[in-house]
Amino acid sequence: MAEKAQRSGVGLRPHFKTHQSLEVGRWFKAVGISKITVSSFEMAEYFSTEWCDITVAFPANILEIETINRLASKIQLNVLIESIETAAFLEQYLAHDVGCFLKIDLGAHRTGLNPENTEAMDNLMEYTHKAEKLELKGFLGHAGHSYHAKDITEITTIHQQSVSLMSSLKKRYKNPGVIVSIGDTPTCSLMDDFRDVDEIRPGNFVFYDLMQHYIGSNKAEQIAVALACPVVAIHKQRNEAVIYGGGIHFSKERIEHPKYGPVYGQVVENKGSAWGAIIPDMFLKGLSQEHGIVSIRGERINDLSVGDVLMVLPVHSCMAANLMKEYYVAESGDKITTMNSC
Amino acid sequence: MAEKAQRSGVGLRPHFKTHQSLEVGRWFKAVGISKITVSSFEMAEYFSTEWCDITVAFPANILEIETINRLASKIQLNVLIESIETAAFLEQYLAHDVGCFLKIDLGAHRTGLNPENTEAMDNLMEYTHKAEKLELKGFLGHAGHSYHAKDITEITTIHQQSVSLMSSLKKRYKNPGVIVSIGDTPTCSLMDDFRDVDEIRPGNFVFYDLMQHYIGSNKAEQIAVALACPVVAIHKQRNEAVIYGGGIHFSKERIEHPKYGPVYGQVVENKGSAWGAIIPDMFLKGLSQEHGIVSIRGERINDLSVGDVLMVLPVHSCMAANLMKEYYVAESGDKITTMNSC
Repeated sequence: MAEKAQRSGVGLRPHFKTHQSLEVGRWFKAVGISKITVSSFEMAEYFSTEWCDITVAFPANILEIETINRLASKIQLNVLIESIETAAFLEQYLAHDVGCFLKIDLGAHRTGLNPENTEAMDNLMEYTHKAEKLELKGFLGHAGHSYHAKDITEITTIHQQSVSLMSSLKKRYKNPGVIVSIGDTPTCSLMDDFRDVDEIRPGNFVFYDLMQHYIGSNKAEQIAVALACPVVAIHKQRNEAVIYGGGIHFSKERIEHPKYGPVYGQVVENKGSAWGAIIPDMFLKGLSQEHGIVSIRGERINDLSVGDVLMVLPVHSCMAANLMKEYYVAESGDKITTMNSC
Repeated sequence: MAEKAQRSGVGLRPHFKTHQSLEVGRWFKAVGISKITVSSFEMAEYFSTEWCDITVAFPANILEIETINRLASKIQLNVLIESIETAAFLEQYLAHDVGCFLKIDLGAHRTGLNPENTEAMDNLMEYTHKAEKLELKGFLGHAGHSYHAKDITEITTIHQQSVSLMSSLKKRYKNPGVIVSIGDTPTCSLMDDFRDVDEIRPGNFVFYDLMQHYIGSNKAEQIAVALACPVVAIHKQRNEAVIYGGGIHFSKERIEHPKYGPVYGQVVENKGSAWGAIIPDMFLKGLSQEHGIVSIRGERINDLSVGDVLMVLPVHSCMAANLMKEYYVAESGDKITTMNSC
């Protein structure tokens, strides 16, 4: 991703909500990354011990003004605003300068300013220009609807719309130094032409997962996290095994698989210290709090014993990583901690 | 629940996976509870500092034999077995006596022995009788299919089937001292007649939640946990607000609401130190990692400002409590820690 960003002439400010780990963050430092994105001020505090330029890509929660001020006193902190109300509160209560991005709705309709609402855009632009504590950094969008895309054609269309929208904002508000930032893993993985975009913020690509795989962002062999789940019961008569791995490990995120229906994870070959290819017809069909139900079609169930460990690729690596709280490196067995490790 | 158990002549061994808190556990001690259920050996270790009789209601994971032995050296530990393989492993590697329950599939088809498979039942009964380290405690089932029930009629049917199944096992294997244990929150909340059942193990009832409410287990006003979520953005044109409260807080558990469609939480009146009734037409319609999208039909959106705090009832309190890691008592503001508090 760092190479692609360089090749395409865009800055890379990776989203660290996926791994939530200082140690994994150092892998990014090693390839020259100096600015990051996180999804909460709490996460910004964790990373602020090693990173001095952090964008919190979530509409600024004004109730966290104390944390915002603490962070702004020591790092370049950038926040997202999308209303005069939030901007005015910050301007009044900030003790230090803070960078701000206007959050733009690129079509996902989760949050952000509607770029066609020029009145609201103009008002907020004018407010931030006059504000003393808020330094306008640029426009920021997240094409979250790319996660529901069916294929690369659809992702290409979404990407072109995002880029075109952001270009038009850049033209309309000619501000030297004001940048345009976009970033979701599908478009950043599959596209090469970012035109007027200055910065991309993908995050999931550090691990990828089944959801991204089925969208087309990554090959199955690029998925870099798996959950090691012991087999605790075998039900041959219904071609199922029960593993110790449930909703509190995987999260209840699921995909609709064209062949299998709802899938919460897929089993890969267990190669001892690492893992191999996805095993056909062996997938997580259901989850309760601690139980995972693995469907095993065919003869493979006859080779299975209680105490075996199944390696299972998660549907959504960000959610599973948040729940699991720490990692083990497949090759070395070394432990990697996260902000959630106790 | 303690009163009902006493009235109905059954023991109450509440499931503590819902709250995961020593302090909440003490509320149970105060009403005379002395035996508990948990869902993992890790949880058993946490509670073993204050509880000396713990059943781990999950098929025993033999890879945790060291933890099992550590626990068995200091408390009355009960494990679930459903195969000769697991029983034989334990018999060989246990350093201390352990109680065991045969896990019976009451119809949920998640796991457990099929009670009609008398050959497998007989074999495992015989094995545990001969085993030196395994002390047969009884038969244990969990009618998890009651969570998919539509109404009290369906729950009643499920309950009657469970009770009848367990009664027939008790008759077939006449063993003095061998008990029958069932327990899921819907049947334990709604039924009064437990016939031959010796022990019930509900857990969710300590907090209840929206899922249980719509099944009919509890009234909305009995739900005892809510998430306090700050409003970070308001989108009047589409009658939505964005809150700081996403999949890493609520979990992605959802219900299909007859009127609203998929619902991830419902907003209640915020009364400052506590909360009131469910607000009609104001519900969590979507979640991403940190964002919650609240649908607000009608005029209420005009009273909303960024920085307001919405109190939101979770769909599944066990999952939300596991993610949130600690509680604040509404009346006092006191903090209650859990095994996941850092």
